[in-house]
Amino acid sequence: MSEQDWSIAPAASIATALAEGSVRARTVVAAALDRIGRVDPAVNAFTQVLAERALARADRLDTARDRGERLGCLAGVPFAAKNLFDIAGLPTRAGSRINRERAPAERDATLIARLEDAGAILVGALNMGEYAYDFTGENIHDGNTRNPHDLGRMSGGSSGGSGGAVAAGLVPLALASDTNGSIRVPSAFCGCFGLKPTYGRLSRAGSFPFVGSLDHLGPMGRSVEDLALAYEAMQGPDPADPVVTGRAPDPVRAGLDAGVADLRIAVAGGYFARGADADALGAVAALAGALSCTRTIEIPQAARARASAYLITAAEGAALHLDRLRTRASEFDPAVRDRLIAGAMLPAPFVERAQRFRRWYRAAVLDLFREVDIILAPCTPCRAPLSGETTLVLDGVAVPMRANIGLFTQPISFIGLPVVAAPVWLDDGLPLGVQIIAAPWREDLALRVARHLERAGFVRAPVANLA
Amino acid sequence: MSEQDWSIAPAASIATALAEGSVRARTVVAAALDRIGRVDPAVNAFTQVLAERALARADRLDTARDRGERLGCLAGVPFAAKNLFDIAGLPTRAGSRINRERAPAERDATLIARLEDAGAILVGALNMGEYAYDFTGENIHDGNTRNPHDLGRMSGGSSGGSGGAVAAGLVPLALASDTNGSIRVPSAFCGCFGLKPTYGRLSRAGSFPFVGSLDHLGPMGRSVEDLALAYEAMQGPDPADPVVTGRAPDPVRAGLDAGVADLRIAVAGGYFARGADADALGAVAALAGALSCTRTIEIPQAARARASAYLITAAEGAALHLDRLRTRASEFDPAVRDRLIAGAMLPAPFVERAQRFRRWYRAAVLDLFREVDIILAPCTPCRAPLSGETTLVLDGVAVPMRANIGLFTQPISFIGLPVVAAPVWLDDGLPLGVQIIAAPWREDLALRVARHLERAGFVRAPVANLA
Repeated sequence: MSEQDWSIAPAASIATALAEGSVRARTVVAAALDRIGRVDPAVNAFTQVLAERALARADRLDTARDRGERLGCLAGVPFAAKNLFDIAGLPTRAGSRINRERAPAERDATLIARLEDAGAILVGALNMGEYAYDFTGENIHDGNTRNPHDLGRMSGGSSGGSGGAVAAGLVPLALASDTNGSIRVPSAFCGCFGLKPTYGRLSRAGSFPFVGSLDHLGPMGRSVEDLALAYEAMQGPDPADPVVTGRAPDPVRAGLDAGVADLRIAVAGGYFARGADADALGAVAALAGALSCTRTIEIPQAARARASAYLITAAEGAALHLDRLRTRASEFDPAVRDRLIAGAMLPAPFVERAQRFRRWYRAAVLDLFREVDIILAPCTPCRAPLSGETTLVLDGVAVPMRANIGLFTQPISFIGLPVVAAPVWLDDGLPLGVQIIAAPWREDLALRVARHLERAGFVRAPVANLA
Repeated sequence: MSEQDWSIAPAASIATALAEGSVRARTVVAAALDRIGRVDPAVNAFTQVLAERALARADRLDTARDRGERLGCLAGVPFAAKNLFDIAGLPTRAGSRINRERAPAERDATLIARLEDAGAILVGALNMGEYAYDFTGENIHDGNTRNPHDLGRMSGGSSGGSGGAVAAGLVPLALASDTNGSIRVPSAFCGCFGLKPTYGRLSRAGSFPFVGSLDHLGPMGRSVEDLALAYEAMQGPDPADPVVTGRAPDPVRAGLDAGVADLRIAVAGGYFARGADADALGAVAALAGALSCTRTIEIPQAARARASAYLITAAEGAALHLDRLRTRASEFDPAVRDRLIAGAMLPAPFVERAQRFRRWYRAAVLDLFREVDIILAPCTPCRAPLSGETTLVLDGVAVPMRANIGLFTQPISFIGLPVVAAPVWLDDGLPLGVQIIAAPWREDLALRVARHLERAGFVRAPVANLA
């Protein structure tokens, strides 16, 4: 190891150091691989470590720099991807056992390729809930990802490996997906930043789907600047994207430090102020206070939005897996299988009505953004639960854990709004997450607010004290 | 009555005569009302006759002409609309009993308003299958519409009143809707021309829906020129349309007589050459011969397309009517109710898979249109069946009549392709219909082919010999 511990350095610092020549890519990647080897057995964030590929790429980058070539904005930055992203040469397992029999992917997913085009270096694939139908970070095939800040607690899911790897300091950036909260929940539980962009913003080409009309991909990291760097590198139309919006990139880094004086910010009331425990509400209140925000806004029919997201998820998920459910049910994680089978029996008109409601709800929520620019809401109803807990107490009622952690994330992703999940530490204990929600395509505003709060010390994503 | 029987004159002739001053609008409208009064008791095409409204409008038109104002291209042309179109002051019954309790519509549907803006005069509302879920023209609440060319036979549905009114010479033009074949089937059975435009082309504002992703509105008439006149008058974006495409109008009349020498025409083979009886195939062959077309093209997976249209229709229809099914099931036509209840129990993943297949199928069929401009196929598997028949023999197998008449129309509307239904008379008996199918937004080509065949005498829509 060098004196500077490059394994836990921010992405921005690594890229700067590489450009300046004060460190070589091989040193950074070797440090990351070393830390993964030492720390990951306790966390279980990685399902595959790609040492050879990563070191070869680091060497090519170092050679390029030696030749005086200009390096990308993420030069030498190690990152890892939830194992539903295609990685050339590996079967895309998406957290399942069944998918391990798939043919190896022929090429990397678009977002992996874009990060590598910017100089970043993929070091491995990350653990996740089976087929992304999970909020806990538990996986019976690969083992659970443990929370780096308390190994006895859940990492959150389904991007549990992404949250674990970032919080444990194994990589400064991780790719993840969020259908109903799978970026925001592990960001909250593991205490890192996560960006779930606007639906359709980042290409989904080369990723294993879950619910076509709800799936989003995005980055997780330990600073807002790193998040913005990765996000900017991944934007732009992609003809291979199954949801082609053709949206031109919207740069975000230039305006990141513009402050929040011009922004109308409100706290989500009603549904979002019930069901959460005092700490979760305290985290929102702390950020509202830091932003001098006294306004509350009611997102109408949020409970129905969540129920609708639930129905659509179950039905579309079941449609995707129907053949596997028929022929290989015993090879699923039972907790996932049973939800999918239930989804397979949902009457179609329920789902059709949920879709109709979605159109109404989208219009109603977009109306709110005439009055405000940012809405704050909890990410989860509580801090990371202990591993193995199966119930959660909401408003005094014990409900199933797995399905209810996404109570506050589902009504937001349901209509594709961009969200930054920002980690708050109210005491010396575990983090809590706050959703910083913006209107469609206004990721810039959510990132700006998160950055402002980070500079003022209200949100932060420290490396867990593990090694 | 004047010497010229204005009640059965083509729309184009009426508008010309009005512009020239050789007839007054009141005369034309009075003749239509008189014929409706004499002939419609046998046909049962009308559910409401709007004599007062129509005569008042005729008088305003005559006054305008007397003042020297310029008249629209449909000046004085009587027309009627399937009773799922809103008509100011009437509840929009959509063929049902339940809907008669609805509040009266506040304004006319967009397409009615556009035809009247062009000078046409609405004379009434037309019978239809309950909630448009029908191919027979039968309605237990309002009585069946009888086929004007043989009163013992079905008119076809669900736009049975539109087909009956046009074929009986009660109006030269009628508005109708087509979800799975409801314009094309009665056009075929009643021997008139029908245009089912591209999905999204004509505004659906102010019409009672059936299946949002499959519903089309369009005109029926006794000549291609009349069809083109009405179609042109109704085009153009409408902010009130639930499916806003913002498509600018594509004029069609100027090119109507351009002939077919430049068009690549093929007959649909495979699925579309099976299941039809010899007469239905003979009608297609007759038109192919007239067009010197020897090419056959296979529309891939048409059977699956039809099954998918079926599933989506049942499920979306059930979703639309779920509350009524729960509380007022006994007030439905049993034949409709039972299909909707079955739809209410369809598992959602079946429908989701049908939607996925639709995307594949649409791309596959659009590919065919790189090679051809027009595809010919039968409208129905046979001529108009006798009223009350409940089974149909397809490929030697007896199947339920009501559900199977749309065998050949469903795979085409499923992906929103524009079609002109053109009536062929192989002998002195009943008509048969041929679908002239074009690529999306190329109604002009389908109309051009129909016009060419009409001028050459291969297709025609005579007034039935009734009065």
